[in-house]
Amino acid sequence: MATLDDIAKLAGVSATTVSRVINNYGSLSEKTKTKVFEAMRELNYQPNSLARSLKGKKTQLIGVILPGVSNPFFGQMVQEIEDQLFKKGFRIILCNAGSDAEKERDYLRMLMANRVDGIIAGSHNLGIEEYQKVGLPIISFDRYLSDEIPIVSSDNYHGGQLAAQTLMRSGSKKLQIITGANRPNSPTNARLTGFKDELAKSDLDFDIMEISFSATPNIKGLKIKELLSKREVDGIFCTDDLTALLVMQQAKALGMRVPEDVKLVGYDGTNFVQSYHPELTTVMQPISDIVMVMIDLLLKRIDDHDCELEDNYVLPVKLITGETTV
Amino acid sequence: MATLDDIAKLAGVSATTVSRVINNYGSLSEKTKTKVFEAMRELNYQPNSLARSLKGKKTQLIGVILPGVSNPFFGQMVQEIEDQLFKKGFRIILCNAGSDAEKERDYLRMLMANRVDGIIAGSHNLGIEEYQKVGLPIISFDRYLSDEIPIVSSDNYHGGQLAAQTLMRSGSKKLQIITGANRPNSPTNARLTGFKDELAKSDLDFDIMEISFSATPNIKGLKIKELLSKREVDGIFCTDDLTALLVMQQAKALGMRVPEDVKLVGYDGTNFVQSYHPELTTVMQPISDIVMVMIDLLLKRIDDHDCELEDNYVLPVKLITGETTV
Repeated sequence: MATLDDIAKLAGVSATTVSRVINNYGSLSEKTKTKVFEAMRELNYQPNSLARSLKGKKTQLIGVILPGVSNPFFGQMVQEIEDQLFKKGFRIILCNAGSDAEKERDYLRMLMANRVDGIIAGSHNLGIEEYQKVGLPIISFDRYLSDEIPIVSSDNYHGGQLAAQTLMRSGSKKLQIITGANRPNSPTNARLTGFKDELAKSDLDFDIMEISFSATPNIKGLKIKELLSKREVDGIFCTDDLTALLVMQQAKALGMRVPEDVKLVGYDGTNFVQSYHPELTTVMQPISDIVMVMIDLLLKRIDDHDCELEDNYVLPVKLITGETTV
Repeated sequence: MATLDDIAKLAGVSATTVSRVINNYGSLSEKTKTKVFEAMRELNYQPNSLARSLKGKKTQLIGVILPGVSNPFFGQMVQEIEDQLFKKGFRIILCNAGSDAEKERDYLRMLMANRVDGIIAGSHNLGIEEYQKVGLPIISFDRYLSDEIPIVSSDNYHGGQLAAQTLMRSGSKKLQIITGANRPNSPTNARLTGFKDELAKSDLDFDIMEISFSATPNIKGLKIKELLSKREVDGIFCTDDLTALLVMQQAKALGMRVPEDVKLVGYDGTNFVQSYHPELTTVMQPISDIVMVMIDLLLKRIDDHDCELEDNYVLPVKLITGETTV
């Protein structure tokens, strides 16, 4: 790392002069300024962010706590978060919390020690009381963390309704929803509620299958195989696209045709799924808009810790019709 | 953020006493120490990392510069990096550089300003001269950055050989390799070289199709459709799995059967592809091992900036036989 002395030496001036240029202090000739700036560029010198932040300024660091970027949904979300924050001069410290509450707790402590300016959190480890007392601006994606932390999410309830409507319209009579384990206070439960409420308007019956979010694809595949083997359902709503891909995989292995034998609707509609599985009918979350709102709220809270925000910000979903519900 | 005064108040001691406990200075009773530690825990107090790092200590931050985590390969790699570094007490600052050399350059400057302890870099923007003068420990994944920066990669050459052997063994006569645009000094070129060298041992002919890494899936799909429509090739090696998924998609749309009409081998073998596309024959990179070696080397360089390291560290690949080459 270059020091003031290195720059002074290269520019052929004193360290005091370099310091004056950096702090824009005293009267200096344009020629001297140019020499110093050139030396700073040459040596890749950066005024020290850490020193600035100790003086009460910001670190320009944001902590991002999500289940894990190996999942294409969170991969796309983190890429959006990083990209949008970069344009505003912030960097992110990434934490993949998985289903590990202890790791999430450790990260909260470390993010405080690194003095991040704020946190975006959307992990699945609810009930972490530490969120209550972090004392930093936090915005949550799709999870209830505490009364003071605003939640940004897609319109999970309407998404559930859309899925039910789509399956009914395509002629399904025996419906099934496959969803992560039910959690109290989780906004994603609204996908189930919307689905239920819509079906309640008809005479159709349906079953609920819960598979833990943290189950491996192999375990999920086994449970789906068991379900499909009974040949009792002809319409399935999976509350995430990856589970829907497993349904297609298992249906194929069992010689069942999608959509002839069983219709299928997913949820998420990432760029990845739209590019590599355009055949899947799915409810698309507006990831880019969700991120834009989260960042907007977070920067407001960073500017003013006490600014008034809503409890919930809900963004519209969109049905993408593929070939699995025709 | 809790201050010394907050802790002093809660513990019922003076701020000076708190400071003494934290800095382990002067004689203090066990009872006093316990009270102070309990108050620190209660208030989630962390001795300030920034202040420590200004005294020349480490920030425990590592910069990670990769093309983008929305790609499942880099998603899995970043999750591994974060997870393994977390266990060693480090956090990561994530930069998705995409194909944006300017962004990568900006990040390098910002990472220096944030005083990261080191950098793991594997972006596709070669020839960035700034890497030469960063003055921080850097380890590269699969890319040549400068003479002083060690490269860790999978055995790209042997992977190319394996792909050629597999296609020939399954009876392909007219072969094709689809690969990212050729870049000088890029170790991934070895996938092409290995493929070529293996075919040179036979009488078989083959063609090379180059598609830029940054082309969208739609653009890639169009080029693949054009290729397949000619019905001239019966064996394809894609140097990444996502392109192989597009070949399967386009073949299906054209009514061509895989593997009957055209055999297919991919490269990468992420957990994602193994779970959601087990039908794809592919060359698996040992992501977890690659990450382990990168971190091991980086921590060595952080401890001793001048320690001697090799130029290249090559890890073995493994053929995963699916149903696309039977």
